[in-house]
Amino acid sequence: MKRVGILTSGGDAPGMNAAIRAVTRTAIYNGMEVIGFRRGYEGLLEGDVIPLSVSSVGGIVHRGGTMLRTARCERFTKPEGVREGLQRLKEYDMDALVVIGGDGSFRGAYELHKLGFPVVGIPGTIDNDIAGTDCTIGFDTACNTALQCIEKLRDTASSHERLFLVEVMGRNAGFLALEAAVAAGAEFALVPEVPFDMDVLCKKLHYAKERGKSHSLIIVAEGVMQASELQALLKDTGGYDARITVLGHIQRGGSPSSFDAVLASRLGGGAIDALVRGEFGVMVGRINGEIVTNPIQISWEQKKSLDAGMMALVEILGI
Amino acid sequence: MKRVGILTSGGDAPGMNAAIRAVTRTAIYNGMEVIGFRRGYEGLLEGDVIPLSVSSVGGIVHRGGTMLRTARCERFTKPEGVREGLQRLKEYDMDALVVIGGDGSFRGAYELHKLGFPVVGIPGTIDNDIAGTDCTIGFDTACNTALQCIEKLRDTASSHERLFLVEVMGRNAGFLALEAAVAAGAEFALVPEVPFDMDVLCKKLHYAKERGKSHSLIIVAEGVMQASELQALLKDTGGYDARITVLGHIQRGGSPSSFDAVLASRLGGGAIDALVRGEFGVMVGRINGEIVTNPIQISWEQKKSLDAGMMALVEILGI
Amino acid sequence: MKRVGILTSGGDAPGMNAAIRAVTRTAIYNGMEVIGFRRGYEGLLEGDVIPLSVSSVGGIVHRGGTMLRTARCERFTKPEGVREGLQRLKEYDMDALVVIGGDGSFRGAYELHKLGFPVVGIPGTIDNDIAGTDCTIGFDTACNTALQCIEKLRDTASSHERLFLVEVMGRNAGFLALEAAVAAGAEFALVPEVPFDMDVLCKKLHYAKERGKSHSLIIVAEGVMQASELQALLKDTGGYDARITVLGHIQRGGSPSSFDAVLASRLGGGAIDALVRGEFGVMVGRINGEIVTNPIQISWEQKKSLDAGMMALVEILGI
Amino acid sequence: MKRVGILTSGGDAPGMNAAIRAVTRTAIYNGMEVIGFRRGYEGLLEGDVIPLSVSSVGGIVHRGGTMLRTARCERFTKPEGVREGLQRLKEYDMDALVVIGGDGSFRGAYELHKLGFPVVGIPGTIDNDIAGTDCTIGFDTACNTALQCIEKLRDTASSHERLFLVEVMGRNAGFLALEAAVAAGAEFALVPEVPFDMDVLCKKLHYAKERGKSHSLIIVAEGVMQASELQALLKDTGGYDARITVLGHIQRGGSPSSFDAVLASRLGGGAIDALVRGEFGVMVGRINGEIVTNPIQISWEQKKSLDAGMMALVEILGI
Repeated sequence: MKRVGILTSGGDAPGMNAAIRAVTRTAIYNGMEVIGFRRGYEGLLEGDVIPLSVSSVGGIVHRGGTMLRTARCERFTKPEGVREGLQRLKEYDMDALVVIGGDGSFRGAYELHKLGFPVVGIPGTIDNDIAGTDCTIGFDTACNTALQCIEKLRDTASSHERLFLVEVMGRNAGFLALEAAVAAGAEFALVPEVPFDMDVLCKKLHYAKERGKSHSLIIVAEGVMQASELQALLKDTGGYDARITVLGHIQRGGSPSSFDAVLASRLGGGAIDALVRGEFGVMVGRINGEIVTNPIQISWEQKKSLDAGMMALVEILGI
Repeated sequence: MKRVGILTSGGDAPGMNAAIRAVTRTAIYNGMEVIGFRRGYEGLLEGDVIPLSVSSVGGIVHRGGTMLRTARCERFTKPEGVREGLQRLKEYDMDALVVIGGDGSFRGAYELHKLGFPVVGIPGTIDNDIAGTDCTIGFDTACNTALQCIEKLRDTASSHERLFLVEVMGRNAGFLALEAAVAAGAEFALVPEVPFDMDVLCKKLHYAKERGKSHSLIIVAEGVMQASELQALLKDTGGYDARITVLGHIQRGGSPSSFDAVLASRLGGGAIDALVRGEFGVMVGRINGEIVTNPIQISWEQKKSLDAGMMALVEILGI
Repeated sequence: MKRVGILTSGGDAPGMNAAIRAVTRTAIYNGMEVIGFRRGYEGLLEGDVIPLSVSSVGGIVHRGGTMLRTARCERFTKPEGVREGLQRLKEYDMDALVVIGGDGSFRGAYELHKLGFPVVGIPGTIDNDIAGTDCTIGFDTACNTALQCIEKLRDTASSHERLFLVEVMGRNAGFLALEAAVAAGAEFALVPEVPFDMDVLCKKLHYAKERGKSHSLIIVAEGVMQASELQALLKDTGGYDARITVLGHIQRGGSPSSFDAVLASRLGGGAIDALVRGEFGVMVGRINGEIVTNPIQISWEQKKSLDAGMMALVEILGI
Repeated sequence: MKRVGILTSGGDAPGMNAAIRAVTRTAIYNGMEVIGFRRGYEGLLEGDVIPLSVSSVGGIVHRGGTMLRTARCERFTKPEGVREGLQRLKEYDMDALVVIGGDGSFRGAYELHKLGFPVVGIPGTIDNDIAGTDCTIGFDTACNTALQCIEKLRDTASSHERLFLVEVMGRNAGFLALEAAVAAGAEFALVPEVPFDMDVLCKKLHYAKERGKSHSLIIVAEGVMQASELQALLKDTGGYDARITVLGHIQRGGSPSSFDAVLASRLGGGAIDALVRGEFGVMVGRINGEIVTNPIQISWEQKKSLDAGMMALVEILGI
C-alpha cells in the first residue's frame, strides 16, 4: 500500500475537508503518497488530479465545502465507466481509493471493489441516511444551521403571532427534520418515515390554538411535500395562514461543527487504518463511540430508522 | 410630559427590543412613566397595554423580534381608526407616543400628530428605505445574516462549480441586496432602482465563464423579480442552470448586531430627548454620526438613493 | 407521584433551560405539578420557589444559563443542611426532586435519597466528566464555543506566524481540551490525564519548526497548569515566545447547540419517565444512543477515561 | 502608474483580506499590475514578494487575518531602513505602495512619501483610533465579537448573580469598550479617555445593588488597567467579588462583518482611485458616508474623540 487516491462525490457536506486532511496526513504518517481526484468520479475519468501533501491540506479543517470539489457522474453509473475508472487508477499507479460521499458514491466504489480494486468509503452527507455509522459527516452541522435559522424565524413568528412552515432537506429520511424540531422546540415534525395525515395535523393545530399558543412552528422534510404545497393545503383545509421558509442549500454549507470536525478526523484516520490492516470494500463508521468497519454495501442494504422516542418527544414537548 | 406610550408596528426588525429598552429607561431617567401597547396600533385600539419598568426591559437588549409584538392594522389607516386611537391615548392619560417601525407606521403617527397629539418616530426596518436617517434599525443585522447565509451557499457553489441565485428582501429598495453583494463578493446585484436588462446579464455571465470563473453568485432583490422567475429566464435565454435560494424571513430575525444595538439605543434615547425638548411630529435619525430630528413625513416624502459608487464596485470587484 | 421539584446546581451549562422545559412539560403531560427551586440547594433551603407551567417554560429552549439560577451551597454539604432540605421538601408537599448539575450536585441528591426521598439526577456540566452518560449537557456547546474562539485566534496566529497557547476549562478532565484540539486541528493538547513533560513538548515544537510550520496552537486544560505558567516555562526552557488566551467563562454561556438541546430534551423527558417507573436514586444518561438510568453514585465512583485514539490523532494530524 | 505594491502591517484586523482583494482587482481593472509584499515592511526589505492576480485574491473576502501576513518591523522605524525599502521598491520597479494598517504603519509610509515615493494608506485596526475616517477596518467586527462573548458571559452572570469584569482591547482609545458596553447593555464602561475614579465606581455598584440588580457587567479597556488589577481593587476597596474575562486576541480574528467587508472593499477601491488621480501621501477614509482622502499624517496628528452622548448613554441605560 504505497499510493492512495481520494475523492469527494455527490452533495458536499461540512467536514469533508477535515476528512480529506485526516486521510492525507494519516496516510503520509504511514509512509504513503496521496493523490486527490477533483470533481468526484468525473475527475477520476478525466485525470483531473492534484498531489496532496501535509501542507496542502493545512488550514482547511474548518472550511465548508470540499477543496477537491464534487460532482455527480453519470458515466460512472455504467460498467464501461467503472472499467475506465479502474484503468485510470492503474495508470496513476494507485493502490487504493478512498471515497467520501453518500450511498450513491459508495455504489461506484463497490463496483471498483468487485473488480478487485481496494476501496474504503467514508460516509459524508447531511442526510444521515447511511447505515453502518451512527452519524454521517455533515449531519450535526446541518442540524445546527437549521436550528439557528429556525431560531431567527421564531423571533418573527412570536412577534407577529404567526404559523411558520420550515422546509428542511431530506428526500427519503427525516433525521434532520426530527433533530431540528426537537432542538428548536418546534410544535410539529413531518418526516417521510411517517405517512402524512392532514386531519391529525389540523386537529393538533386547532388544539394548540385553543390552549392559547400564539405561534407555532412546523418542520417539514422535503420528502414529505414542498412547503408551498403544505401551505396551500393548510389554507384550503383549515383556513390556516402560514408563512413558509425553504432552508435549501444553506444547510449544506458552513464551517463544520466541533462534532463534525472530530468525526471527520476520526473517520479519515480510520479509513487509512483499514487500508493498513488490509480491509478493502468496507466503509468506516462510528458506532457507539467506536470507529468500526462494515462491508460498504451495508450503506444501502440496511435501512436506518428514526428513533421512536424522539418522535414521541416532539408531541410531548410541543404541548 | 409625564406619561409616554410606546409601540412597535409593521415588520419586526432586530434591535427593536434594544430601542424599547432605551426609550423606557431614558424616559424613567427623565421622571416619566412608560406604557407599552402590544401588537402595534391594533393593541392601541384594543387597549392591550403593559406597563414598562426598568426591570421589565432588562435582559432584552440582544433578543430578536419585539417583546411588544407587532401587527399591521387596517383600521388605523382610516380616519375613524386614528380618532379612536387618539381617544384611547387620552383614556390612558398619555402625553406622547413613540412609534418604532417603517414609513407605513410613521404615516399613522403623522395622522395622530395632525390631530394635535405629540408623537415621535424611530425608524426600524431591515429595508433601510427611510429618509431622515443614514441607517434604520435592523438593516445592519439583516446584512450580516444575508452575508452569513451567502457564505454558506458559496461553499456549495464553489464545490459544485455552480451558478447560484439568492433572493433577498427589498420590494422597493436595493440597499440590502447591494450591501450583501459587495460584502459577499457576489458577481452581480440586481436592484429595483436599476431597470433589469437580461441581455446585459447574459453577456456578463458569458464573459465570466470565458475568463474561467467556475462559479458565480447573483443577488436579486425581491422587488426585481422572484428568484424562480429569474431562474427560468436564465434557463430559457442563456441555457444557464442556476440553483436558487430565497432567504425570506430569516433576514428579519436574530440578535441585533453591535451596530444595530448601539443605533437602537441611541435613537431610543434620542426620541425621549426630542420629547423633553418639546419636538413633536418628528422622527429621530442618525445622519453623519449625529442624532438628529426631522419632520416625520420626510420618511416617505424624500427618496433615499443607492450609492452609485457601490453599484460600480460590484462590477469592478466581480471581474 | 403528584408533585415534582426541580433545581439547577453548580456551574451553569448551555442546555439546562432545555432540560428544565423538558422535565416540566413531560411531568405535566404525565399529570404532575412542577415547582422550581431557584439558586440550587440554597433556594430549596430558603424556600425560593416558582411554580412552573407549560407556558412559563416556553421560549427558553435556546437560552443559555438557567432560568432557575444556580449557586453552590455550603450548607447542603452537611447533614443538618440535607435534613433541613428534606424538611422543606415535605413542607412544599413534594413527591420527588430532579437535580440538574454535576457530580457535586449529585452528591447532595444522593444524601436526600439515602434519607428516603425520591431523587433523579440529570448530568449538566461542560466538563463531561461524569460516568453514566456518554455526554453531559453543555459539553458539545462548550466544544463549539472553544472551536470558534480558537479559529479566530488561528487567523491572527497565521497572520503573525506565532505560537499560541489557549487555556480551556477542565480541572480534572481533558475532554474539552482534547475535543477542541482535534476539531481545531491544534498541534498539541495538554490534558490532566497525561503527565506533563516539558522535554517532549519542546522537542515537538522544535521538530515542527524544522519542518517549516509557521505557527502552532497548543490547547491546555486548566488542570494541567495556567497558560501564563506554561508561557513562562516555554520562554525560559525553549526560548519560545508564545501568546496566551484564557477562554474562561465564555465557554459556559451561549445558546445550546442542536446536539445539546436534543440531549437535554431527551434526558429531561427520561428523568420523568424514571420517576413514573418508580426508579429513584438514579441519574439518567445517554449511552450508545439509548436513554438509560444508573445509580446516581456512579457519577463519582466511576472514572470516565479519555479516548486513546483521540490522543493519538492529535499527534498524527498535527504533523 | 503601472505597477503597485501592497502590504499589511501591524496588528491584523478582520477585513484586511477584503481590502487586499479590492486594491488588487481595482488596480487590474485600471490596467495596473499588483505585487504583494509579505509580512509588512519586513517582507519589503527582504524581498518576500508574491504577484497578485484576479484569481489569487478570489475566495478571500470573508477570511480573517491577512493572506499577506503581517509583522512589526523595527528596522523600518529608522532612516536607513526606509532608504533600503525605497531601494527595494525601485528594484521591483514599483510606481506606488499601498499600506494597510494602523498609525504606526502609516508613519513608515509617510517616510517613504517624504523621500518622494507615492504611497496611499488604508486604515486597518480594530482600535478605531485613527483620525481621517469615521471607522477603521476591523472595528465593527471586533465590536460584534466582543458583544457575542459578553452575551455568553451574561448567561453565566445572571445564572450565578455575579459581577463580571470584561477586559477588551484598547491601549489608548476606548472606542471598542464603549461601543461594546452600549451594545451589550453593560452597566459600566471604563475607558482611557476618562480618568478612573474608584470611589465613583464603588458608589455606583453600591447603588445598583440597592436597587436590586442581581448581576452587573463592567467593560474595561486594557489601557485603563488590567482586569486582574481592577478585580483586586474591587475586592480590597468595596468587598466585591468579581469574575474576570480577558477577551484578548479573539477580538482580532474572525470573518469580517458585512460592515467591515463593505468598508474594506470601498477603501481598497478608493486607494487605487486616489493613485489614479495622482494623490500621493494620503490616507483614504470614510467620513459621513463618502470615501475621502486626507494627508496621511492626519492619522496621528489629530486625535479622534469619544462620543460624549455614548458615554452618557451607558449611565442612563445602566440604571
